[in-house]
Amino acid sequence: MKKFSFLLLAVLFISISFAGFISDSNAQTLSDKKITEYKKVARQFVRKALEDRKGYYLLKELTDIGPRLSGSENSIKAIHWAKQKMESLGFDKVWLQPVMVPHWERGNIEKANIVSSKKYKGRKLVIRALGGSIATGENGIQGKILSVKSFDELRANKDQAKGKIVFFDRSLDQGLYSGGYGGVWNYRVFGPDSAAKYGAIGLLLRSITTKYDNNPHTGVTIYSEKVKKIPAVAVGYLDSDFLRMALIEDPNLEVNFKLNCKWFPDAQSYNVIGEIKGSKYPDEIIIVGGHIDSWDLGVGANDDGAGCIQSMEVLDLFKRLKIKPQRTIRCVLFINEENGSRGAIVYSAFADSSHQKTIAAMESDAGSGSPRAFSIDSDSLTIAKIKTWLPILNQTGILQVRKGGSGADVGHIKSAKARIGYSPEGQRYFDYHHSDNDQFSIIHPREFELGSAAMATLIYMIDREGL
Amino acid sequence: MKKFSFLLLAVLFISISFAGFISDSNAQTLSDKKITEYKKVARQFVRKALEDRKGYYLLKELTDIGPRLSGSENSIKAIHWAKQKMESLGFDKVWLQPVMVPHWERGNIEKANIVSSKKYKGRKLVIRALGGSIATGENGIQGKILSVKSFDELRANKDQAKGKIVFFDRSLDQGLYSGGYGGVWNYRVFGPDSAAKYGAIGLLLRSITTKYDNNPHTGVTIYSEKVKKIPAVAVGYLDSDFLRMALIEDPNLEVNFKLNCKWFPDAQSYNVIGEIKGSKYPDEIIIVGGHIDSWDLGVGANDDGAGCIQSMEVLDLFKRLKIKPQRTIRCVLFINEENGSRGAIVYSAFADSSHQKTIAAMESDAGSGSPRAFSIDSDSLTIAKIKTWLPILNQTGILQVRKGGSGADVGHIKSAKARIGYSPEGQRYFDYHHSDNDQFSIIHPREFELGSAAMATLIYMIDREGL
Repeated sequence: MKKFSFLLLAVLFISISFAGFISDSNAQTLSDKKITEYKKVARQFVRKALEDRKGYYLLKELTDIGPRLSGSENSIKAIHWAKQKMESLGFDKVWLQPVMVPHWERGNIEKANIVSSKKYKGRKLVIRALGGSIATGENGIQGKILSVKSFDELRANKDQAKGKIVFFDRSLDQGLYSGGYGGVWNYRVFGPDSAAKYGAIGLLLRSITTKYDNNPHTGVTIYSEKVKKIPAVAVGYLDSDFLRMALIEDPNLEVNFKLNCKWFPDAQSYNVIGEIKGSKYPDEIIIVGGHIDSWDLGVGANDDGAGCIQSMEVLDLFKRLKIKPQRTIRCVLFINEENGSRGAIVYSAFADSSHQKTIAAMESDAGSGSPRAFSIDSDSLTIAKIKTWLPILNQTGILQVRKGGSGADVGHIKSAKARIGYSPEGQRYFDYHHSDNDQFSIIHPREFELGSAAMATLIYMIDREGL
Repeated sequence: MKKFSFLLLAVLFISISFAGFISDSNAQTLSDKKITEYKKVARQFVRKALEDRKGYYLLKELTDIGPRLSGSENSIKAIHWAKQKMESLGFDKVWLQPVMVPHWERGNIEKANIVSSKKYKGRKLVIRALGGSIATGENGIQGKILSVKSFDELRANKDQAKGKIVFFDRSLDQGLYSGGYGGVWNYRVFGPDSAAKYGAIGLLLRSITTKYDNNPHTGVTIYSEKVKKIPAVAVGYLDSDFLRMALIEDPNLEVNFKLNCKWFPDAQSYNVIGEIKGSKYPDEIIIVGGHIDSWDLGVGANDDGAGCIQSMEVLDLFKRLKIKPQRTIRCVLFINEENGSRGAIVYSAFADSSHQKTIAAMESDAGSGSPRAFSIDSDSLTIAKIKTWLPILNQTGILQVRKGGSGADVGHIKSAKARIGYSPEGQRYFDYHHSDNDQFSIIHPREFELGSAAMATLIYMIDREGL
């Protein structure tokens, strides 16, 4: 009997462990009835967003203003447009949060030519200044080219850099499913400094893109204080191919390029904030946002007009469906994500020191593609809880909830229980990124509107179920 | 003791059931080492497909031939192109499988005008014959319009149908995440018959599309033997909006439309089949395919040139990566999916009666979008096994393996252990479907090539692990 009771206990123990293991991962599972109800709400968000296409037409209005680089007149117009729009949509409270932002302007001269080459003299290269570059002066920068593919190669050839223009002829790795940008962005950000260190007089960067076109993709470049600043430009991808070929034939060819971009003193700007007050827990805040600034090429439809409008539409979808949130849902349009993150820094300082508690902070800054996933920066239990909502999120096209980074803006809000990145289909993202390709015409209305619905659904679940 | 042993047995039983339940879903889990190895192979497929873009350029070649409706000269050209291409890619065996197919031609007259209306007389409507429609005769069909939104509404107004042209003014439901097509396709297929039954003389169908454009979307229509055949056309979506509005102002307006489309006797055609022989189990067949025919509008790039080339590229990716399959991998390009499925019927009869065993049959006929899911028609254990491969499939963008339908062609192969539908991102699918919009230019190279890689990865897993 003793033997048997020991065995019995052992078996019981194992059984309970098993049961425990199972219930852990299912602890917060919703009842079937609840799931059915929530699925219905999700489908209502989808239907409302898709049928009305209201966000799509709002995005048209926003992008009609033009590009919205921090400190620009357009950015201020867009900020006031967004504030007025939030007011007219009937949000409970709308305000501007002051932020001082950097102010750089591209100017109207961006010219590059091949000179001192028998065969290619006079051939133009399509260039765009990197964001933050200094100007060249009236005669431009002229020199021979040192073409390298990496920082290592530059270091290995540092003795040849002096007095030359360094050409970082480095392509985004197209052989990766995603993440190719990770291997090139630092050449845009730190390339000029790394070349200047060895005495280079200017920098050409192969345009960072997944599209074989000739529209150079810009983006921020950062000078350190220690090194002489040199002018830096992106060269169209096709013209970079050309230059690569021309340098093989004539390694001594020279390039001249001219820029008249300019830095101004920091400018007054704003985050745009609007909220619907929670009926039950008004001091529990759920944030949804994007960044209102864009680069000055294209009109920032995909990056990040789409995310701003989707965030506004989340609140508006609650209103259109007459759903009263229990917690306060706040839309934050951050200024200056592209070249400083000043808006996120100001907002997060405000949020972290507020008596109100940020439950979750969601960001849409990964383009206007069709819903795929949410990437969540939080503790394991919170992520596990959100994962149990997948059958509901599925209704909007979301197939995955994963642990991971959130976004450049909401990532600053350390006091939030969960920081969430909306992660749509993104294979076209770097076709448009920071270039003239980023136009309203590349927005697909259904894909874009489904993003609003997917985001609204997760915000709704957090509102109803808490985190 | 008896009591205890009963309890013991009961607990043991429960424990075993639990263990069984758990092990069922994990039974076939691969070792971490295996998963790491397989992930590496998946990433090789991705890199090879994306870097080479070989399939993309093959699709350009195929679509340069033009549309490929069954029975057409182009379809035969495409069949021979595919056969020669498979041979030049070095497949072990390539052959044509004879199939008799229906042969219908659109003709060169598709005109519609509003007549007998003061305000709108002479206004043209953009139309395209539904696939299989009869012609109108030289003077066209002329009559007043009975506009209805559903079969029910037609039945309720059947007394008004006689001598009139029925206008099925029914939109695809844009408020659904997917599945809107499910509520309209039967109006295209059975609409003419349903109208003719009540004495209607012709049929106008609002174009079935998710895109607000004026390119009518065609597709098969089927006449029964019992009812008089009437000519049937799709009307551009925008012109359908116009007609709706015009009918409100002038319900008695008449429309005249002319078609000279024509039926011919069945024509000789072929499935195109190519395979790489398995090194270990040559009589275990893994099929991957699409349909080589298309509608006669556009060039069938998305439907289903993409699926054909992806299927060919699966085999070619094995060759490019020097992976020798253990089982025989067979690419089948089915003829006549669009208006008869004769190719699938012939192939499945051949497969079902063969001494060779079809392990799996995969189809790509849901467009060229980015990978999302595989939908699998098989028993639960097989599906559970494939689900354990998700971490590997993830490398290619696949986030879901689900039980569901497979595809119109491989669905016929009942002897296959698993029928598998590749299910990419599809929000744009019905923008192009069966219309002049279905051009090579709408193919996104990365999204398309990732499909080849995703399919190759699942085929590879089935080859290595069996089903």
